[in-house]
Amino acid sequence: MNFPGRQQKVREVLAKNRLDALLINHLPNIRYLCGFTGSAGFLLVRQQEKGAKLGIARHAVLNAVAEWLAGRRKKSSKSTIGIEAEHLTLAEKKRLDDELPAGIRLRNTVGLVERDRMVKDVDELKLIRDAVRLGSTLFDRILEVLKPGVRESEVAAEMEYAARTAGAEEMSFPTIIASGARSALPHGRASEQVVQPGGFVVCDFGVILAGYCSDQTRTVWVGTASEEARRAYAAVKDAQAAAIAAVRPGARVEQVDAAARKVLRKAGLGRYFTHSTGHGVGLEIHEAPRVAAGQEQVLESGMVITVEPGVYFPQKWGVRIEDMVAVNESGCEVLTPTSKDFLAV
Amino acid sequence: MNFPGRQQKVREVLAKNRLDALLINHLPNIRYLCGFTGSAGFLLVRQQEKGAKLGIARHAVLNAVAEWLAGRRKKSSKSTIGIEAEHLTLAEKKRLDDELPAGIRLRNTVGLVERDRMVKDVDELKLIRDAVRLGSTLFDRILEVLKPGVRESEVAAEMEYAARTAGAEEMSFPTIIASGARSALPHGRASEQVVQPGGFVVCDFGVILAGYCSDQTRTVWVGTASEEARRAYAAVKDAQAAAIAAVRPGARVEQVDAAARKVLRKAGLGRYFTHSTGHGVGLEIHEAPRVAAGQEQVLESGMVITVEPGVYFPQKWGVRIEDMVAVNESGCEVLTPTSKDFLAV
Repeated sequence: MNFPGRQQKVREVLAKNRLDALLINHLPNIRYLCGFTGSAGFLLVRQQEKGAKLGIARHAVLNAVAEWLAGRRKKSSKSTIGIEAEHLTLAEKKRLDDELPAGIRLRNTVGLVERDRMVKDVDELKLIRDAVRLGSTLFDRILEVLKPGVRESEVAAEMEYAARTAGAEEMSFPTIIASGARSALPHGRASEQVVQPGGFVVCDFGVILAGYCSDQTRTVWVGTASEEARRAYAAVKDAQAAAIAAVRPGARVEQVDAAARKVLRKAGLGRYFTHSTGHGVGLEIHEAPRVAAGQEQVLESGMVITVEPGVYFPQKWGVRIEDMVAVNESGCEVLTPTSKDFLAV
Repeated sequence: MNFPGRQQKVREVLAKNRLDALLINHLPNIRYLCGFTGSAGFLLVRQQEKGAKLGIARHAVLNAVAEWLAGRRKKSSKSTIGIEAEHLTLAEKKRLDDELPAGIRLRNTVGLVERDRMVKDVDELKLIRDAVRLGSTLFDRILEVLKPGVRESEVAAEMEYAARTAGAEEMSFPTIIASGARSALPHGRASEQVVQPGGFVVCDFGVILAGYCSDQTRTVWVGTASEEARRAYAAVKDAQAAAIAAVRPGARVEQVDAAARKVLRKAGLGRYFTHSTGHGVGLEIHEAPRVAAGQEQVLESGMVITVEPGVYFPQKWGVRIEDMVAVNESGCEVLTPTSKDFLAV
């Protein structure tokens, strides 16, 4: 991983923002910048010095800040350190304020490192591909165990066992196996409900491998499908394809969202698509950009997002299809290898 | 669950702290007070009104605040709302500040709900007992699969599969299976390392059942144990028993920590006990109180804590033994049923 290069980019952002340093407490940002994988820590990146200071305990960083300030004193009387406003709590801020050496001002910043993290480098793309490939094998396991009479939680148990056995560190989020009317809940975590014939099962799952997340959804019918179910599925599949076709460098993410929404609207299903179309994925399962209406972020080569339209009929059933895609020069590469053909078990 | 009673206690705390309301954003606190189990929300508890206002979206709560303020206006010109300083980020606070109706002041609070949550009621103790019982069955699974040649991650996979199959919602934290020299790491998450004869394996694991966490550690030897290993194990076992004996209403948690430390010091192992003795457990895997030196929290009947001394010899091996105990009138009840006798596999 090119940690020096990543830190250098932060220093450039600091210069642009007239910050002398950035105090980073969001663990995925710390991992991104220096590889640290512990469960607590702070990282101080200084504008005019190479390297970064990692502290596991708060005092280690306060000491680093104090030392660095002492070294700087001759040059200027005041220094401004950026803090991560979306990640630092009021209590943590107060402790910093109480103990910081004089001459230091803290200034709120938002998303400075996250903005860099949106564009994945070659190393990251490789790790993401590996995670997506491993994650996709879990759908094979689903097809082996999903049948009428099995509990949703049993399906999840088999998948998670397969993930662990294949080397995944953990699931990237609580596995969603939502059958029957529960498939109309966009976030129906696997429950004790028994799978019955005559409905969809939404399967939304992912793994973490070497720190990077995968995220995928497939929806399968149990029993003999009605024409209505097949039509809804086909509309979601078309919407997803249209959204994927809209992913290219220079497009705004809201255009990707609009492309999916347009297809579903034409199919008379627009109002059943009740969430946004996708999100960035990387070291975190949900990261920038949000792929949603009103989001003007412009796509760049190297960004990795999910494309996951769905329709949900309350008390009845729902359908969602989700792939991960990587933006490239010619449009995008669909990373998720799993078939999206209609499937009944 | 006695949600009205819990909310009433918060109102009493508000009165004592001269707060008109408390805006709660920490999800375990929200779940504790009203049963909400979603992944985002705010709860507003008002001092002089029964019930509490739950909002999933931020605007729902801002509207509730505004409405409530409109109703109050005649009585007083200013209102003070407590916010959870340990859980609200600077960015969230800023958004609140920007949108709050005039006449409202926000004031930082720390641990108001957490303090109530330390003492578990009868309903909670039942759920905790169920979680601990389910969690303890995973050790049986460990003993079936742990042997030379197996990978740590395979042991974790089997445990997690057993947990899911038995109805657990998820593990309460990433499973620790730390073999060989890795057993000297207090937080050695299961890795791809193959278990070898001639060392300890620290197994630290827990489940979530109906929202409540279990937490347990057992350490087993692989192969034929040396006298030194047996002595270290016996010292940790004695230290744990001494700490448990110190748990009773009226004792300070630092006394529990000191009791474990004293035994290990006498055995010449004091400096290898490098962490604190325990922590509260409930809706969160780590909650108040911290059972550590310098912590003066007085134990009360109904508190549930872990007692988990350990010794760690860097590059060599480590031992930890952990139970969950519930403080009761006569001292405490050890909830974890698993034997603590020395065990070699």
